[in-house]
Amino acid sequence: MLDLESPVCVFEWRYGSEEMRRIFSLKSVVRRYIEVEKAIMRGLEKAGIAPRGCSEMLEKCAEDIAPRDIYEMEKVTGHDIASLTYILGEKCGECGRYVHLGATSYDVVDTAWALAFREALRVVKKKLRRLIEILTELTKEHADTLMVGRTHGQHALPITLGFKLANYIYEFSRSYERLCGVEKRVVKGKISGAVGTMAAWRDKGLIVEEEALRYLGLEPHTITTQIAPRDGFAELAAVLAILGSQLDRLAVEIRELSRPEIGELVEGGGKRVGSSTMPHKRNPVRCERLSGLAKLLRSMVSGAFENIVLWHERDLSNSSFERVLIPHMFLALDQMLEDMTWVVSNLQVFPQNMFRNLELSRGVILSEAVMVKLVEKGMARHQAHKLLMELSRRALDEGKSFFEVLRSSPEITRLLSEDELKGVLRYEKYLGSTKALINRALEYAAATLSRC
Amino acid sequence: MLDLESPVCVFEWRYGSEEMRRIFSLKSVVRRYIEVEKAIMRGLEKAGIAPRGCSEMLEKCAEDIAPRDIYEMEKVTGHDIASLTYILGEKCGECGRYVHLGATSYDVVDTAWALAFREALRVVKKKLRRLIEILTELTKEHADTLMVGRTHGQHALPITLGFKLANYIYEFSRSYERLCGVEKRVVKGKISGAVGTMAAWRDKGLIVEEEALRYLGLEPHTITTQIAPRDGFAELAAVLAILGSQLDRLAVEIRELSRPEIGELVEGGGKRVGSSTMPHKRNPVRCERLSGLAKLLRSMVSGAFENIVLWHERDLSNSSFERVLIPHMFLALDQMLEDMTWVVSNLQVFPQNMFRNLELSRGVILSEAVMVKLVEKGMARHQAHKLLMELSRRALDEGKSFFEVLRSSPEITRLLSEDELKGVLRYEKYLGSTKALINRALEYAAATLSRC
Amino acid sequence: MLDLESPVCVFEWRYGSEEMRRIFSLKSVVRRYIEVEKAIMRGLEKAGIAPRGCSEMLEKCAEDIAPRDIYEMEKVTGHDIASLTYILGEKCGECGRYVHLGATSYDVVDTAWALAFREALRVVKKKLRRLIEILTELTKEHADTLMVGRTHGQHALPITLGFKLANYIYEFSRSYERLCGVEKRVVKGKISGAVGTMAAWRDKGLIVEEEALRYLGLEPHTITTQIAPRDGFAELAAVLAILGSQLDRLAVEIRELSRPEIGELVEGGGKRVGSSTMPHKRNPVRCERLSGLAKLLRSMVSGAFENIVLWHERDLSNSSFERVLIPHMFLALDQMLEDMTWVVSNLQVFPQNMFRNLELSRGVILSEAVMVKLVEKGMARHQAHKLLMELSRRALDEGKSFFEVLRSSPEITRLLSEDELKGVLRYEKYLGSTKALINRALEYAAATLSRC
Amino acid sequence: MLDLESPVCVFEWRYGSEEMRRIFSLKSVVRRYIEVEKAIMRGLEKAGIAPRGCSEMLEKCAEDIAPRDIYEMEKVTGHDIASLTYILGEKCGECGRYVHLGATSYDVVDTAWALAFREALRVVKKKLRRLIEILTELTKEHADTLMVGRTHGQHALPITLGFKLANYIYEFSRSYERLCGVEKRVVKGKISGAVGTMAAWRDKGLIVEEEALRYLGLEPHTITTQIAPRDGFAELAAVLAILGSQLDRLAVEIRELSRPEIGELVEGGGKRVGSSTMPHKRNPVRCERLSGLAKLLRSMVSGAFENIVLWHERDLSNSSFERVLIPHMFLALDQMLEDMTWVVSNLQVFPQNMFRNLELSRGVILSEAVMVKLVEKGMARHQAHKLLMELSRRALDEGKSFFEVLRSSPEITRLLSEDELKGVLRYEKYLGSTKALINRALEYAAATLSRC
Repeated sequence: MLDLESPVCVFEWRYGSEEMRRIFSLKSVVRRYIEVEKAIMRGLEKAGIAPRGCSEMLEKCAEDIAPRDIYEMEKVTGHDIASLTYILGEKCGECGRYVHLGATSYDVVDTAWALAFREALRVVKKKLRRLIEILTELTKEHADTLMVGRTHGQHALPITLGFKLANYIYEFSRSYERLCGVEKRVVKGKISGAVGTMAAWRDKGLIVEEEALRYLGLEPHTITTQIAPRDGFAELAAVLAILGSQLDRLAVEIRELSRPEIGELVEGGGKRVGSSTMPHKRNPVRCERLSGLAKLLRSMVSGAFENIVLWHERDLSNSSFERVLIPHMFLALDQMLEDMTWVVSNLQVFPQNMFRNLELSRGVILSEAVMVKLVEKGMARHQAHKLLMELSRRALDEGKSFFEVLRSSPEITRLLSEDELKGVLRYEKYLGSTKALINRALEYAAATLSRC
Repeated sequence: MLDLESPVCVFEWRYGSEEMRRIFSLKSVVRRYIEVEKAIMRGLEKAGIAPRGCSEMLEKCAEDIAPRDIYEMEKVTGHDIASLTYILGEKCGECGRYVHLGATSYDVVDTAWALAFREALRVVKKKLRRLIEILTELTKEHADTLMVGRTHGQHALPITLGFKLANYIYEFSRSYERLCGVEKRVVKGKISGAVGTMAAWRDKGLIVEEEALRYLGLEPHTITTQIAPRDGFAELAAVLAILGSQLDRLAVEIRELSRPEIGELVEGGGKRVGSSTMPHKRNPVRCERLSGLAKLLRSMVSGAFENIVLWHERDLSNSSFERVLIPHMFLALDQMLEDMTWVVSNLQVFPQNMFRNLELSRGVILSEAVMVKLVEKGMARHQAHKLLMELSRRALDEGKSFFEVLRSSPEITRLLSEDELKGVLRYEKYLGSTKALINRALEYAAATLSRC
Repeated sequence: MLDLESPVCVFEWRYGSEEMRRIFSLKSVVRRYIEVEKAIMRGLEKAGIAPRGCSEMLEKCAEDIAPRDIYEMEKVTGHDIASLTYILGEKCGECGRYVHLGATSYDVVDTAWALAFREALRVVKKKLRRLIEILTELTKEHADTLMVGRTHGQHALPITLGFKLANYIYEFSRSYERLCGVEKRVVKGKISGAVGTMAAWRDKGLIVEEEALRYLGLEPHTITTQIAPRDGFAELAAVLAILGSQLDRLAVEIRELSRPEIGELVEGGGKRVGSSTMPHKRNPVRCERLSGLAKLLRSMVSGAFENIVLWHERDLSNSSFERVLIPHMFLALDQMLEDMTWVVSNLQVFPQNMFRNLELSRGVILSEAVMVKLVEKGMARHQAHKLLMELSRRALDEGKSFFEVLRSSPEITRLLSEDELKGVLRYEKYLGSTKALINRALEYAAATLSRC
Repeated sequence: MLDLESPVCVFEWRYGSEEMRRIFSLKSVVRRYIEVEKAIMRGLEKAGIAPRGCSEMLEKCAEDIAPRDIYEMEKVTGHDIASLTYILGEKCGECGRYVHLGATSYDVVDTAWALAFREALRVVKKKLRRLIEILTELTKEHADTLMVGRTHGQHALPITLGFKLANYIYEFSRSYERLCGVEKRVVKGKISGAVGTMAAWRDKGLIVEEEALRYLGLEPHTITTQIAPRDGFAELAAVLAILGSQLDRLAVEIRELSRPEIGELVEGGGKRVGSSTMPHKRNPVRCERLSGLAKLLRSMVSGAFENIVLWHERDLSNSSFERVLIPHMFLALDQMLEDMTWVVSNLQVFPQNMFRNLELSRGVILSEAVMVKLVEKGMARHQAHKLLMELSRRALDEGKSFFEVLRSSPEITRLLSEDELKGVLRYEKYLGSTKALINRALEYAAATLSRC
């Protein structure tokens, strides 16, 4: 089928884990189709439409069906599920004529998608959980590692590396929640026949559905057309793209902080606390790859939204797109989770550079701290704000430390002693509720991860 | 500010209800900002940072602030929240100096967004609930109204109009569920200061946050940077776009079924059951408008995903986009809900045309029913399938009724009597579990709507 | 590298022609990389940096390099081009040390992309040209085949099938124009070294570039960073997606017109003019597949736009996304062109059904023609409009022919004789400049196709 | 129509120039509609359908029509163009009955869009030209200003600021080219009646079209349905989004280079060469706003692609979306061009910081220069590469200058004297063809800007 040396798609070999690739390989697709045909047969047995024993029979006669068999026949029939059922019909003797009886192709296709989603989401959740755990360790380790908080790319106020990471833990946990939510809406079976009425099973449809899905461990969709509603697929795509974009945000964080002028975090090189000497130039290529794949995830979603708008009881225009969308999104996200897990596990942290950068403005970033103190001492907030703007600017313009400038200002010294000033100008004293907030984030993550 | 005759944006006047427009009008934006400033002041009081009484004071001194005041000043300061707090500071006497103390602009902006989301989602949910209710009535009314189920735009099998609509009820209910889910993640307050550490409130940050948000009736984000995490905004955009696409699907359904060659449903003209004569040509312009706005919703989501990827403790590149995204998405969806509610309330249904179309293939669409019967009588499924393919084709080719062709086939008559044949060829006998499935859908909707 | 039975990507085997697949196969990717390395070697020779003969040498020593060699080594080096140049260096004896000298990886990657674009665009243009030619034949054949023009899905005025198709010819020709335009901007070489300054070739950079690109038959980018500017890639993606959406529009046209209630065009079944009896139910699955792939094309563009925004002289976040984007877009479009060519070549046309549908409103769609006549005879336009609205409605309400209703209206008969009325009510007399416009479209297409 | 204090759309007042806002104000929309009605009247006169003088008459009687007149009536008629023509019909006496005769609403709407595109593209091109001119000045001024070229956010090789900017000049010029290309495809008139056949003008349609468009200075679309083909609108949206993304790229460049750790460029503060002391913290808010609006542009395109896929001779689902899309895209881009022009005009450049950063790796970034020299002296490229990797790493690890490390390496000193080494290690000597490439870019821009 394929020339071994010449794939056109990088997800065949370059991106994505074997674990995820196996889920979306053609073999697994066919395996799931057969699984659903077996489930339907069980339903037919239960409803008294097929004779007892046919589902076990199907188990055996389906054993050696290879994708090639089906897809060679599809070239003639133009239809993969029809080819599969024909082959099963031929191979399964007496039971052959009950194969797929009363079912429609999308009973098989959509229920198989649900099975694939269940498998793939299990992997995604497992890897996300692992990532959150590693970040939790790192957060605890660096709960006190001072660094500058940056807004607009500019220095704002001191934070700790732990605090920064705890934000990601919270954000990722929200994605975990969303995965659990969408799972409930897409991991659902669709066993309802040609236009969803179950008509071919006459008054036994609900029995067929119940038994088939019980076997597969799936809840049914409440009602369907010929297919499961596509809002679920769209939501799934969106949820994956949101998680992908969050991973991208962390990748960009690391890419930025590994600039040679900054040197606070460096991708790769073994997880350890680095010295303050110049970190080796090391291109953050895993993070960059991740950022690239995030664009793929983000962009594919709009097509998934379009796919909701099918005609009447369905048209087929969802099909070709979904055959691409679903494996590619899961494989891209899978690679991203692998990459980020590796990156975070091997991240070099340079606390001395963090401190050096924090000191870059010679204390000026603590002007808010001074302002708060001045207001406590009775100065009006906007007066304090104006005064400190001037003094900050002077410190920066004249290349002096903020402390020097402050203690030579009479408006300041009138209210604050030199010792008080020194106390205010300690970064580690201006971290507010950092610790409590980190704890809230870790508790939130723990609660979320334990829920589904 | 605006030339009365010359808006550039159609959401100012053309699309969207007054109710929704009011939520996103500049006046309301400013009102919410002030509301949050008051809430923060309550927090400061509670924490003992501001004197008792200041929040009530603020209530009064903020009374007559108009958007114009703020946005004129913004031209100088370059900052809207800074301008507001300056004005408040000036107007509120003694308490003025505590206004916004220790807070950052996005404590105000993001908490105000949460309030806006709460208001806007309340409207969306209300209108969606109403739409589901109207559809429920229509579903019950037409639970037995026969029509053809269409797949690929071709005739597949009989359904009822009620069954068709019950699918939309299920799909819309899933959106309702999603609205409840995302609401939990975006209607959350952000009161945590400049980089999210609450440092300016020293050890009192959690008290300020708790009291401020208690006043506003919001839960807090567990942890934040300078801003609330943007995955929530992205999810919100996606959830609205999914609902919009579902509405589009129903709009396309109606647009298609009102083609003069089909004439089953007609937009407008008063809700009544029409006669089978030619429905007047009536362009389905509301449905078309709805389909147009759905494209707007779908397309804006990818920007919302990009917005997740902000730098460090935030950069500002979310801001300009969100100022457009949020009101435009809600107003577009609002118009769509209004349009669809009107359309469904005034839909003309033409049961006789539905039946005429059902008869178009002279019974051939019931070939599955015949096949099921033949298999019951002992014929193998794929033999039956092959035989019926031939007979169907003959009926269509020769312009004969399916019944005529069937009863002149010895393979058929060998197994089925003429009376049995007639029994099989009744559309209303081939509806499977339609009724039970409609009930499942209505119960699902009722349960969902009562949950949040 | 790949399990023969288990690809995850449908473009490996299911969608896309062999011709296009070959262009993006890993073998071809590597072949182009080597081709560019040879070109650079020629440049180095010309500039006197490498000894004469090395490019010929390279020709030979590169002969048996397989993708596997490179990508096995990449697992160690983490870099595909570095691996290639290492292997070449090892294999090419004396000349080995000049391989890639002074070049950067993206001299190879981006110039190879330009070569791939040239090959792929050649295929796209060839297939689009072929499609336009077939449509031209069909247009000429059906220049007089009457059918109804539809707006809002409703009947508007008579047109001919030829006129309808001529619009597609014009629209596709505009895409052809765009392909020619974007080709000029993306089929350009990038031979400029690490940050685009050509520094490693000292003052010989322009010679290296000129000779290397002369060999490859490419124009150079005027100036570059480390990479070719990505606006070109974005434009390419947009141009392909626009063409894809136009194909989708034709696919939707056919899907709609093959509804059993309409029956004017039917996908498949051999190109011939069908009888007016019921066209066999035939699902328009090729058109539906095409519509599905169009969603893929449309959705991938937003990522290509994001890719423009790279940092400084480049970051790598374009790379992983482009490895997916480029082959997938071309392969999807390729399948769509194949599908549409097949569909149009095998389209069944049912002129009698077209006429039947035209007659559906019993002449009422010619009310504009009557109005024009009345205005000619002196009635004011809006009076005529009002009168004809009433009469049309009466005809439809009472199920009478428009002619009957008109000739019993004194306002009409006062101005028009029965013969004049009959003359006005002939569809073929109300086609305006249809023929001339078809000719303009065909001339436009011919001129466009001959230009690039 | 609008509450003065309470717009919901920021493009009414916050973003976009007055010049652009005027083009898309409701007044201008109506003015263009009337302009097209006049043009059609001229066509009717020329064709002998309307009496001579009616177009001049229309000129006068249309004078005082206000948007309010039309849009109040639209509430009743449900149709804006119908309302306009009714009002004109009433006001224009004898000529009234010829108003809009034989035309369809979209003759007016789409030809008016073409006029709006012409006006808006003129503004975009003017502003883009201006931006390129300012960048050209800056490029010339800083043709020799040394700075580090960055790839992956890491230091790569020396460039000059002029070289960096010349790349943007090239990229923007490519957008200018695209604007000229798309202009040819969208600034085209559509005067062809209800389904594009011109039937209502019988055999005079081409005369009406020719005269009407001559008057407006537009070329006609070759053929149309009821509307102009939407591929043009999609291309326009894409071209604007590409330009927007290029502006975003420059905005990100500046935002990054204004980080306090880098301090090479600072937004605002007057265009001047700054000193090497710490640049004041200044949030790059204009660049950030620009980046935000770029997300809006990028995201809206996918809807414009969807809009291509209209049914048959048109459906109306393009309309509501385009009423939003077109003004919002142009206004967003307009604001971005304004912002970037301001930013570049007021950009502070810190050459000393550029040099400081260049020196950050103590010469190691010139290792390629040394390698080239070693190869010249006979060392094999990959040996040289390996050796320099080691020595670079040693320099960085031990915090020594690269020169120190090199001159203590026997492998180096065997081939290079100390003076040769010093010569190699001068940044300004390793700029390759920078100057020539800058010139190529400037010439390219000049040629492009002069072409359309």
